[in-house]
Amino acid sequence: MTAVNLQQKPSMCEGILQSRISSRFNGMDVAVVKSNGPFAWHSHEETDDFYFVLQGALDIDMRHDTVQLGPGDCFVVPAGVEHRPIARGETHFLQIEPICAQMAGNAATVVARRVI
Amino acid sequence: MTAVNLQQKPSMCEGILQSRISSRFNGMDVAVVKSNGPFAWHSHEETDDFYFVLQGALDIDMRHDTVQLGPGDCFVVPAGVEHRPIARGETHFLQIEPICAQMAGNAATVVARRVI
Repeated sequence: MTAVNLQQKPSMCEGILQSRISSRFNGMDVAVVKSNGPFAWHSHEETDDFYFVLQGALDIDMRHDTVQLGPGDCFVVPAGVEHRPIARGETHFLQIEPICAQMAGNAATVVARRVI
Repeated sequence: MTAVNLQQKPSMCEGILQSRISSRFNGMDVAVVKSNGPFAWHSHEETDDFYFVLQGALDIDMRHDTVQLGPGDCFVVPAGVEHRPIARGETHFLQIEPICAQMAGNAATVVARRVI
């Protein structure tokens, strides 16, 4: 059994936008994401969306509010709330959500996951 | 709605060992922990134990193995595996587990949680 360094993992993503699953626990996926620029507006009807920024700057637009995240910041988008993450330059962050959840909301906006 | 800086939260714990809940999502507690030294041997029969080190050094002794964690490292102790976290100096880490779970395993070893 060994530790997994989540700060180094996003550097192993080849492109933008890349999402990789680094660990699983209690039915949850721990995904590392490397991103740059805006993502699609989407919502998750059944699951909260947990963001934790490792490096860079991430704005989360909602229809009536914007939350700005830097390194060490976390934010939970409640289930059903429409939102759009915008990475201000290359940004690395964690997402933790149920294994069955479809990252980025639905078939039109889903981001592929790979395991690293 | 505002972001929560999880790296700064452990500094708000007054003592050693302190555990504070900073956020909740999908039925999970995000707890920040400030610790120094060894903790009791324990296990969680029903839930995996997720550790993510923010600052310092954390060894996790198991009966036949030890995993050493530094900043950015995560490790999942599978449900039912007996373990003992040892903080090598003041160490800050996150734990994420189901809201109903009793941190540190059972009534004899449980750590009180407060919300910050």
